[in-house]
Amino acid sequence: MTDQVREILKWYAGQNPGTLTNLARILNHGKLGGTGKLVILPVDQGFEHGPARSFAKNPDGYDPRYHYRLAIESGCNAYAAPLGALEAGAAEFAGEIPLILKVNNNELLSGSTDPCPAITASVDDALRLGCCAIGYTMYPGSPLFRAMYENLHQLAEEAKSAGLAVVVWSYPRGGKLEKEDETSLNVIAYAAHLACQLGAHIVKVKFPAAHISALDKETYKIYDEIINQHVKVANPIDRIRHVTTAAFNGRRIVIFSGGPAKGDDKVFEEIKAIRDGGGFGSIIGRNSFQRPWNKAIEFLGTVMDLYLGKNVERGGENA
Amino acid sequence: MTDQVREILKWYAGQNPGTLTNLARILNHGKLGGTGKLVILPVDQGFEHGPARSFAKNPDGYDPRYHYRLAIESGCNAYAAPLGALEAGAAEFAGEIPLILKVNNNELLSGSTDPCPAITASVDDALRLGCCAIGYTMYPGSPLFRAMYENLHQLAEEAKSAGLAVVVWSYPRGGKLEKEDETSLNVIAYAAHLACQLGAHIVKVKFPAAHISALDKETYKIYDEIINQHVKVANPIDRIRHVTTAAFNGRRIVIFSGGPAKGDDKVFEEIKAIRDGGGFGSIIGRNSFQRPWNKAIEFLGTVMDLYLGKNVERGGENA
Amino acid sequence: MTDQVREILKWYAGQNPGTLTNLARILNHGKLGGTGKLVILPVDQGFEHGPARSFAKNPDGYDPRYHYRLAIESGCNAYAAPLGALEAGAAEFAGEIPLILKVNNNELLSGSTDPCPAITASVDDALRLGCCAIGYTMYPGSPLFRAMYENLHQLAEEAKSAGLAVVVWSYPRGGKLEKEDETSLNVIAYAAHLACQLGAHIVKVKFPAAHISALDKETYKIYDEIINQHVKVANPIDRIRHVTTAAFNGRRIVIFSGGPAKGDDKVFEEIKAIRDGGGFGSIIGRNSFQRPWNKAIEFLGTVMDLYLGKNVERGGENA
Amino acid sequence: MTDQVREILKWYAGQNPGTLTNLARILNHGKLGGTGKLVILPVDQGFEHGPARSFAKNPDGYDPRYHYRLAIESGCNAYAAPLGALEAGAAEFAGEIPLILKVNNNELLSGSTDPCPAITASVDDALRLGCCAIGYTMYPGSPLFRAMYENLHQLAEEAKSAGLAVVVWSYPRGGKLEKEDETSLNVIAYAAHLACQLGAHIVKVKFPAAHISALDKETYKIYDEIINQHVKVANPIDRIRHVTTAAFNGRRIVIFSGGPAKGDDKVFEEIKAIRDGGGFGSIIGRNSFQRPWNKAIEFLGTVMDLYLGKNVERGGENA
Amino acid sequence: MTDQVREILKWYAGQNPGTLTNLARILNHGKLGGTGKLVILPVDQGFEHGPARSFAKNPDGYDPRYHYRLAIESGCNAYAAPLGALEAGAAEFAGEIPLILKVNNNELLSGSTDPCPAITASVDDALRLGCCAIGYTMYPGSPLFRAMYENLHQLAEEAKSAGLAVVVWSYPRGGKLEKEDETSLNVIAYAAHLACQLGAHIVKVKFPAAHISALDKETYKIYDEIINQHVKVANPIDRIRHVTTAAFNGRRIVIFSGGPAKGDDKVFEEIKAIRDGGGFGSIIGRNSFQRPWNKAIEFLGTVMDLYLGKNVERGGENA
Repeated sequence: MTDQVREILKWYAGQNPGTLTNLARILNHGKLGGTGKLVILPVDQGFEHGPARSFAKNPDGYDPRYHYRLAIESGCNAYAAPLGALEAGAAEFAGEIPLILKVNNNELLSGSTDPCPAITASVDDALRLGCCAIGYTMYPGSPLFRAMYENLHQLAEEAKSAGLAVVVWSYPRGGKLEKEDETSLNVIAYAAHLACQLGAHIVKVKFPAAHISALDKETYKIYDEIINQHVKVANPIDRIRHVTTAAFNGRRIVIFSGGPAKGDDKVFEEIKAIRDGGGFGSIIGRNSFQRPWNKAIEFLGTVMDLYLGKNVERGGENA
Repeated sequence: MTDQVREILKWYAGQNPGTLTNLARILNHGKLGGTGKLVILPVDQGFEHGPARSFAKNPDGYDPRYHYRLAIESGCNAYAAPLGALEAGAAEFAGEIPLILKVNNNELLSGSTDPCPAITASVDDALRLGCCAIGYTMYPGSPLFRAMYENLHQLAEEAKSAGLAVVVWSYPRGGKLEKEDETSLNVIAYAAHLACQLGAHIVKVKFPAAHISALDKETYKIYDEIINQHVKVANPIDRIRHVTTAAFNGRRIVIFSGGPAKGDDKVFEEIKAIRDGGGFGSIIGRNSFQRPWNKAIEFLGTVMDLYLGKNVERGGENA
Repeated sequence: MTDQVREILKWYAGQNPGTLTNLARILNHGKLGGTGKLVILPVDQGFEHGPARSFAKNPDGYDPRYHYRLAIESGCNAYAAPLGALEAGAAEFAGEIPLILKVNNNELLSGSTDPCPAITASVDDALRLGCCAIGYTMYPGSPLFRAMYENLHQLAEEAKSAGLAVVVWSYPRGGKLEKEDETSLNVIAYAAHLACQLGAHIVKVKFPAAHISALDKETYKIYDEIINQHVKVANPIDRIRHVTTAAFNGRRIVIFSGGPAKGDDKVFEEIKAIRDGGGFGSIIGRNSFQRPWNKAIEFLGTVMDLYLGKNVERGGENA
Repeated sequence: MTDQVREILKWYAGQNPGTLTNLARILNHGKLGGTGKLVILPVDQGFEHGPARSFAKNPDGYDPRYHYRLAIESGCNAYAAPLGALEAGAAEFAGEIPLILKVNNNELLSGSTDPCPAITASVDDALRLGCCAIGYTMYPGSPLFRAMYENLHQLAEEAKSAGLAVVVWSYPRGGKLEKEDETSLNVIAYAAHLACQLGAHIVKVKFPAAHISALDKETYKIYDEIINQHVKVANPIDRIRHVTTAAFNGRRIVIFSGGPAKGDDKVFEEIKAIRDGGGFGSIIGRNSFQRPWNKAIEFLGTVMDLYLGKNVERGGENA
Repeated sequence: MTDQVREILKWYAGQNPGTLTNLARILNHGKLGGTGKLVILPVDQGFEHGPARSFAKNPDGYDPRYHYRLAIESGCNAYAAPLGALEAGAAEFAGEIPLILKVNNNELLSGSTDPCPAITASVDDALRLGCCAIGYTMYPGSPLFRAMYENLHQLAEEAKSAGLAVVVWSYPRGGKLEKEDETSLNVIAYAAHLACQLGAHIVKVKFPAAHISALDKETYKIYDEIINQHVKVANPIDRIRHVTTAAFNGRRIVIFSGGPAKGDDKVFEEIKAIRDGGGFGSIIGRNSFQRPWNKAIEFLGTVMDLYLGKNVERGGENA
């Protein structure tokens, strides 16, 4: 057990030993094992966006086992997926990588404007499949926030009681939120804080943009008057620091999503900001599994090297 | 145990031995037993469309025992029906054919535009009636998708825990979906994928049409740019291959529905495409039980022969 | 045990012995005991239409014990009523007549246009009161059909598990159904079929009118093209035969309601059609308890004589 | 045990001995103990109308113990109040008077037009506080009638099973009901009947006005044609008789509410009509606790004397 | 055990010894321990208003442990916070201060106009974290009042059964209530009464303004006619007395919130009115943790000295 992991586990003092054990399993696995940094491979895009939009670019990804292998071979800390995809490899790859069962999922076909995922798996499913954690998506700002928070609480309470960890995807969306609000620095910071308050062990938010939402005037004033003296909103490192600070002053594991596929240079810039701003890592889906195996391994390797502080020069496909 | 069935069961590794046993029972029963192909007789049209519209053409079908006999005599792998119809013959035909209890059903009278079936049977019902599986219909795209997915998950979790298999009818319908969207290739592929992600063991979708829905622009672009290079959308074999690929790269049993009664030649063409495109079989209701007993036996025999790869020349009534 | 009852019980093979016992109790009680025909006295009009509209014409009916006595003295097979009315005599008349507890009820005051009764009693209530069956009203066609079917399933599952029988009042109403649709032959046949599919042991529908609803064009076409060749829609005997055929080809007990009070000759004509069309009996409420005791006894006696095939000449009050 | 109480308990034959015991406790307590007549003190106005509107006129009433004392000293049969108020004195006054826990309550602030009280206490609460009964308010006619009836059934079933009695406040309100309908003779009679059908042991309705609601034309016709021959609607004694008749022909305990404070002469007139029309008593809240202690004791004493048939001349404040 | 605390506990006679014990723990802790007065530190603003708006002014507050320390060092009676914040220090500070788990919370992003918090923690959470009480916010007047009252009842019943105390934040809001109504004297008095009726042990309301809401005309008349003779609405001490009187005549612990940060002189004036009007203390969040540590300690010290009756002259920052 490294000092970094030991230190992180202290922040979760009072949680069941089972939960601490599962957090440690995730933190200690893979290429970043023991560093306190994480890279997680999530593959729920098939459910959320449809199979072709997710896997046609790299058709090997139609097979759920591909993603198990990719997560294992690239040295990710954990692999996260919905029930069906996990079931399709849980026996074959039992014990090879920490698993996170995504217990709720949205779909694209219904095109609901008040987002609220369906609960598609249970804590018992997670236990029978050998998972270390459950993963849950919530959309703060949605008119259906009550249902989402209450379901999260119930599932998280049951998961913690069973010694599992709880990973929360916190994506503000819906209601009065405009597209631009969704990645505003203040909204992302609030989203991270909400996940922490709801008892998440690991929080995933989007990379915050250099924008302050004016949705709530009091909040806007605070950013205008106070925050800008300490936090250079234009500086991505400062923005990451602000978000991790909002997550119990850096005492909760906050990781950031890569979002839609984009130029690798852009991704690597973001990773450096996450690393230097006190973030704990990345959750990278489409940006990895939508490119061929070798490119994906290389890409994820670069990301991990960045987190390891290596001076990376080999770059990605846009390099 | 044939190699084909042994291979298929491997895809479900990690499921309870009870569930594997029931899957094997279905795969090993009837004329196609052991081939890895399936033909299932479903009779829920009485519930869904009314008795006269379903049975007046062949009034013997008013008696639920007729369908038990038809499924048994024709050599189907399984017989699927709602609670009442199964109860009406479960004792008399106990042990003669694997049964699938349809646990939810829609009705025509209410003419609901946001489709969501009522839950009309339970896992306990399935167990007391000696069934091998539960059957569940969901309508991706409906505004009520959350309720349907959540109910499916709960019933499927309970069924799996009790050693039953789970068969999902996945029919996109409602919300923003136009009639044409419902059988579009991309929508059918998504529907098959969703059922897999929700943990179905056997997935039933409609035969995909040579049409791409433009409902989601990103998806449409993918089909336009990438899919068409590999998949000839105009070719039914390619379409079937695309759908089974979307179902965990062919590692989930996907079967196709016959839809409304039509010319037999048309049906046989579809069966050949299913067979040659990697599909696992058909679920044929109205096309069989709405014709007289002898014609139905002959028709189903032809369908099964096609799946057995026989050079069929005797044709059906339109031949 | 007569052959007729033994034959009927066979149709329910597979049900718990407790349920078969309670079905037999109902079939073997009263003047029609053992004939396979039934006349049931239902008194829920006080709840559904108010006490004055129900009992002012024959004020003895305000006392719930009156209906117990009427059902017993007239030789009915069973007495059906809501919780409060049954509780008011269950101890005094314990063991004197099979009881059916109406577990859901509507009311008139709220004037709801989307009909859905409230659940007002439980299976445990039925057991503690010594009932043979629960009775449940559903309104196919109502936008609230899901709730009604799901509640029915849950209550019926519990009732069957406890060895009770399940009686379903199936009254299409609400949604797109016009008044005329509610008693259309095709709609009544569908209603009877739905109750069977939902697992009812005894189905109660309204007497079908010589009218085909055009609500569903496909169904209308079927009736126009096929049914009319076999079923003379204008002939009430044919209509009854069509409805009982829709109820699992006559293998479920279907009884018919008398509806609002009308001339006795009209009622007796209907009874003869029910008898000669393969119906199993009548459920007669207002037509009996809203006339004085002696008249009611005489009237019900005539009805039962008709079912016994006697040449009835004494007639009723309109005779 | 007096003959009157023994007779009343017979009407509830079949109920658990525990429930009969608690009914007897209420009937045998206080100044009217053993007479078969009841006066109950209810104090839920603080919850329903706010504390100042309820207690400012007689500020001693702000203390919940005041009402315990008033009910005890005046010789009421029972004291009814919401959870918090009962908790505030249940230990201090344990065993001194039968208690009725109001398990649901409305509030004024939300001004809901579709009335449906919140459930604010449980049967377990009633048991731990030593209550003899639960009290429940329902609003027949409200669009939310289903929820209210179903909740009542569930709570009543649990209460009866635990040996408690069930008191139902049945107040038609909401939906299509106009203010005038709420106290119409036919509507009040229907309300009393509904409570009986739902299994209430004691029913509380408002004093019926000399008005027939025409909401339901069939019902109106009945009153116009039949009832008026027997019941003089203008005569309050006849109206009370009609309401108690609607309550299982007088075999359920029906009591009447005093409504808002009014002249004592008017109240005493109503009491006499209740007494002479076969009513079982009164539930008097604001009219008692909103006047000073001595006046309240005197007023309630007069009311009880009237029920005892004494020739009362001392009158109330308006005398 | 002081006489003051012993006296207060008597008001809760009949509650479980466990609940009395936890009430005593809160009353006996900190600088005001044993006096019957309380100051509680609540920190749920991060959840409700976002982290920056809550903590940017004094960034030490981003760390949940800061608030534990502040509550402990300043000598508060208890510390109240949502699940995540409590979990973040419950092990480190175990046994150092009575904890109140806020079991429901609102959020700002959704901007719901019909306020109803999400339930975000359970009684089991409170027990595993070593809390003395649960805290619950309700919004009387909201169209969702039923859900809030029913959830409160269920959680409170479970908490009391487990020996915990129940603290209710009662904030009228939503529905027909205008901003000005929310702090009107009559509305605040009603809010306090409702919390008592729902079984709260400790009630928190806002400091009442010198305004009478005319929302309910009957109530307005009462205040105009009667209350103003006894209560000088313009006098804050009289207003506090009126509110505590509405809370079971002063026999329930009512504390008042500080509201948004304001001049210290204003706060101290309010504290004196609370103290002299029979209030039991304050719950002070933003006014304390949004100023630097030393200032906060000094400020809270002054507040407590005021409750101790000391002649305070050192004042706050505005002094």
